[in-house]
Amino acid sequence: MSRLDETYSKLTIKTGAKLVLVVLDGLGDIATRAQGNMTPLEAAATPNLDALVAQGCAQGRMIPVAPGITPGSGPGHLALFGYDPLDFEVGRGVIETLGLGLELKAGDVAARANFCTLNEKGLVTDRRAGRIATSVCERLCGILASKIKKLGTNDVIIVPGKEHRFVVIFRGKGLEGPLTDTDPNREGLPINTAEPIDPKSAAQKKVAKLITDFYKVALPLLKNEKPANGFLMRGIAHQPEIPTFEARYQLKPAALAVYPMYKGLAQLVGMTKIEGPGTIREQFERYVAEYDNYDFFFIHFKYTDKAGEDGDFAAKKKAIEEFDAALPVLLARKPDVLAITGDHSTPCSLKGHSWHPQPVLLHSAASGNDKLDRFTETGSHSGSLGIFEAKYLIRLMQAHGKMFDKFGA
Amino acid sequence: MSRLDETYSKLTIKTGAKLVLVVLDGLGDIATRAQGNMTPLEAAATPNLDALVAQGCAQGRMIPVAPGITPGSGPGHLALFGYDPLDFEVGRGVIETLGLGLELKAGDVAARANFCTLNEKGLVTDRRAGRIATSVCERLCGILASKIKKLGTNDVIIVPGKEHRFVVIFRGKGLEGPLTDTDPNREGLPINTAEPIDPKSAAQKKVAKLITDFYKVALPLLKNEKPANGFLMRGIAHQPEIPTFEARYQLKPAALAVYPMYKGLAQLVGMTKIEGPGTIREQFERYVAEYDNYDFFFIHFKYTDKAGEDGDFAAKKKAIEEFDAALPVLLARKPDVLAITGDHSTPCSLKGHSWHPQPVLLHSAASGNDKLDRFTETGSHSGSLGIFEAKYLIRLMQAHGKMFDKFGA
Repeated sequence: MSRLDETYSKLTIKTGAKLVLVVLDGLGDIATRAQGNMTPLEAAATPNLDALVAQGCAQGRMIPVAPGITPGSGPGHLALFGYDPLDFEVGRGVIETLGLGLELKAGDVAARANFCTLNEKGLVTDRRAGRIATSVCERLCGILASKIKKLGTNDVIIVPGKEHRFVVIFRGKGLEGPLTDTDPNREGLPINTAEPIDPKSAAQKKVAKLITDFYKVALPLLKNEKPANGFLMRGIAHQPEIPTFEARYQLKPAALAVYPMYKGLAQLVGMTKIEGPGTIREQFERYVAEYDNYDFFFIHFKYTDKAGEDGDFAAKKKAIEEFDAALPVLLARKPDVLAITGDHSTPCSLKGHSWHPQPVLLHSAASGNDKLDRFTETGSHSGSLGIFEAKYLIRLMQAHGKMFDKFGA
Repeated sequence: MSRLDETYSKLTIKTGAKLVLVVLDGLGDIATRAQGNMTPLEAAATPNLDALVAQGCAQGRMIPVAPGITPGSGPGHLALFGYDPLDFEVGRGVIETLGLGLELKAGDVAARANFCTLNEKGLVTDRRAGRIATSVCERLCGILASKIKKLGTNDVIIVPGKEHRFVVIFRGKGLEGPLTDTDPNREGLPINTAEPIDPKSAAQKKVAKLITDFYKVALPLLKNEKPANGFLMRGIAHQPEIPTFEARYQLKPAALAVYPMYKGLAQLVGMTKIEGPGTIREQFERYVAEYDNYDFFFIHFKYTDKAGEDGDFAAKKKAIEEFDAALPVLLARKPDVLAITGDHSTPCSLKGHSWHPQPVLLHSAASGNDKLDRFTETGSHSGSLGIFEAKYLIRLMQAHGKMFDKFGA
């Protein structure tokens, strides 16, 4: 633990404060002339958010990882949960597994895999096997899973994803990632051997051998398939050991997320998944119902990011308005500390995640009032929170929940 | 020394610049609806400060320690003086001693102590001995001090504070803190033994033995007292070794403070205490008189913090106006670099120190003009200094005093 984390830990006291973190995925955006010099958040009608701002909020912007770095969902959320994403790297295999709604155990090594096409010389001719239908993928995974349940004393778990994608999990003792990909990354080359990243790690070597063995039994099973007669593995990694959210913050956390990936990320840090609600209104209703059972609620809303990825300004604006319309349900049982933000920006004009600091709003009895009219990207620049690293957000929320003793006399 | 500090040090040149740091203790505040959405600084009439801002100032906000951490006066001032408060922790015993106006020597170990009540079994029945009158505390300290002047070759210094509080200083060779408290922190338990925090430290063990010995001779002296027949020790620590301000910055520093604590903190880093002045006007007058004798003046004004602690908005506003009225005295002999700030925020609505970044104003020939109308919390958010850690303030003041050579060609 860093000295700063030790200091936070020593100062932490339980106050029974209720903290809520609402993540509008990919919320941040940039104003462009083509879009009338407005961001979706600026263009959206948000009467309930505006009323909250008028009551007194602190605003700012957050750097998800480091200046210029665009995070995936994993690092974006780890940072929001207060874990430095440079310290706690979560491999793609793990993220993919979580995205399929699978639970990983400590020590599991997971890889994301693609079915591919091999020629008679064993060279890759199509890295995605012509993007086979999901049903084909499911059938092929069924064949592999029925024949390969164990390698030595290790369990092998094979789960299909969408189209050509699937996941392989190795479960056993003394296994560790990361390893290099078997994907050669372009056509015309043979399947690579997975190599330990740390050549001294016995646990990584053990996984390297497992993967070689896996190919030995799996490839013959696919021999007569067309076009998916091979597969490539990427992001071979183990589930990192992450101190639990509860141990770190002395807060009992619950996650209200709809998409498996975000449930999985919350679960990585030990949050309790609350299953059931589908819409943001239902998520807020469920928060109200569970208010007494937890100290911290992570509420995840996906549709802002989805619209941003599609470059659909109107859909992103509408998603924000949908959130705003449901907000009174949350505010009817106002928590002691409320933070509303994104895990990163997903500007419509860029059709993807970006590095632009996302706006953040804090509301509590100690938030004061930045005297801004609304919660927007442009306004938040001049908010009292300034621009700060996302990993400090929960610390600030704790401070607003009076969860820190004074440091020194 | 960190690489950055080494760099600063190598670049430092003496220019004869005069630097003044005015600390309005606990200056920062938050706007609340109950207080008309204004902070005391915003509500105060500050014509002289306004005129200074109009001449051209750079503004910003400072994080005293780290996001969300509320500092005591010790860490707050160490940070202002440019010492990372996580690197230089000053124990409560030391702070308490400084607060009583006592001087500590390098290596002294100090503890704050409370008289308490013990029952016939030696269990603590009242941790504050019913908050005995200060006169009783003085009498009991007199008894202890007259009988216990030395333990082995070590000097023991006992000084009464207010009510049940007093301070014990152990002075000798090879002594070191910190140790655990003898205070069991709740009634019904016996007095704890002070234990070394670092079990390998011979110097801490030596202090542990001294404290055991001290109890052996002191408790019998209090045996027949009522209700104060025992005492508890807390924050047992030595005066940290801190590089002097003069060595660090090549500036000859003077402190103009009224309260003992702040004189003591200035003295910890080797500032010369200038005794005498009582009001802020007198402090400014004395600065003018001493202008040629020092390069750096730390001027401390307590009453903003006091009013904030009391939750007295009107008093805090008035204290700021009192400062503003005296400001022309300082400006009549304008230093090359003037910084006006707080050591932390003490929001009236929170009635105590807080973590909110305090506003800071810099005025020099190089400060430019942020084109803000006034010096306020809200305005300072959008100032050119941004939000930065307080430990960089003196470095910025040095830069404004042209005290740094160019780094690299």
